[in-house]
Amino acid sequence: MYIDVVFLQQNVAPASLQGRTVLVVDVLRATSTIATALNEGALAVYPTASLDDARKLATELPQALLGGERGGIAPEGFAAGNSPLEYTRERVDGRPVILTTTNGTQALHQAIVGQAQEIGTAALINARAAARWALSLGHDLTILCAGTEGVFSLEDALGAGCVVARCVEAGARPNLTDAAFVTKVLWERYEKAPATGFIDSEHGRRLLDLGFSADLTYCAGVDTVATAVMWRGGKLVSVQAKRSENE
Amino acid sequence: MYIDVVFLQQNVAPASLQGRTVLVVDVLRATSTIATALNEGALAVYPTASLDDARKLATELPQALLGGERGGIAPEGFAAGNSPLEYTRERVDGRPVILTTTNGTQALHQAIVGQAQEIGTAALINARAAARWALSLGHDLTILCAGTEGVFSLEDALGAGCVVARCVEAGARPNLTDAAFVTKVLWERYEKAPATGFIDSEHGRRLLDLGFSADLTYCAGVDTVATAVMWRGGKLVSVQAKRSENE
Repeated sequence: MYIDVVFLQQNVAPASLQGRTVLVVDVLRATSTIATALNEGALAVYPTASLDDARKLATELPQALLGGERGGIAPEGFAAGNSPLEYTRERVDGRPVILTTTNGTQALHQAIVGQAQEIGTAALINARAAARWALSLGHDLTILCAGTEGVFSLEDALGAGCVVARCVEAGARPNLTDAAFVTKVLWERYEKAPATGFIDSEHGRRLLDLGFSADLTYCAGVDTVATAVMWRGGKLVSVQAKRSENE
Repeated sequence: MYIDVVFLQQNVAPASLQGRTVLVVDVLRATSTIATALNEGALAVYPTASLDDARKLATELPQALLGGERGGIAPEGFAAGNSPLEYTRERVDGRPVILTTTNGTQALHQAIVGQAQEIGTAALINARAAARWALSLGHDLTILCAGTEGVFSLEDALGAGCVVARCVEAGARPNLTDAAFVTKVLWERYEKAPATGFIDSEHGRRLLDLGFSADLTYCAGVDTVATAVMWRGGKLVSVQAKRSENE
């Protein structure tokens, strides 16, 4: 099994994803929020690219929670922003969630148009679950970092490195590309204090300035969520739920 | 002053280089060889993209040493390969060198078409010299990693990180992008034994397989060469020579 990391979604050659499992990583905060919502009982998360698409879908799914961000803030008329702390069991259990974010949604779109064999999302909070799911599929793995508005993000490389480390720890003996290896080195630098990685990152500091320090603390919680997330039928769903049914 | 690192030359947005100093890094082995040849007295290094261009230029510059590689090996009829150890004072002093390499030459071409304000090259062996030159110019700096046939290379990120570290150590207090910061983290991981970084890299292992272990040892020698390299009038020349004249 080969593991590769693409540091920036805009740089992926779509054909390179065919036949592979792709894990999209947008640690601050889309993929942390998605894992949280599904872990708290959301039926599915519908990622949408535009505000208009999100609002239109909300009319088709009146029971859905409408959430998302532009510039880190909830758009007007949205019930929730992009903070994982807003996606509590009380609010999302048994409901679909519509989530419009910029970088994470774009990265997911890249994986879809690239015809990846399987697509999922990962963050620090569910790194082990995501790694186990990816390993269970047996395909080569590409971890696709969302980045921030077309720019490389430290925190996504850190999240990728954590998933790589979890794959190695699981005894899978994967072949790592140089990019995957470097993210693992980065993870080893921060694994004892992942939140300091956020403080060292441009996007992390911007979120601190916006008052989201509680989000950063939460998103730095490693393997606190056991839910793996996969793309099925135009939406993101929990792998865990399916696995529990089979077990 | 801002310092950015582009992990792979193919991913650079040319317009992003305007007004900046660009340092091309191809540690194994083009930019190590270029620094060596100029340090050993070569008048200039003419990087060429194709074998045909190199051979044609050799007829115009009959006194030049014709060197380069394809797949790590000297092309037929070339006097030298891409090993820095072949560019001894005995062979290059007072002569121009024509050098055709794949990744390093392409990266240089990217910097030229991107209309960078100043262009130079850097490797581990002349990292401090390159950093000092870049700082002396006062522009923002982009370090452009050559990579290996379109794929991210650990050793170039390591070289970039060493240059970033040298800039920081010089007291310039630069603003580092996340990418620049991550290469510095990588450098700190390997600075006590840079050669192990080569062994951890795909390209380094391939060169070992080809029998170039002496090259790896040489290219891992940090700051052993005091020559900074800059692009002037269609060729690469030593900054050192010019500085010595002024001093």
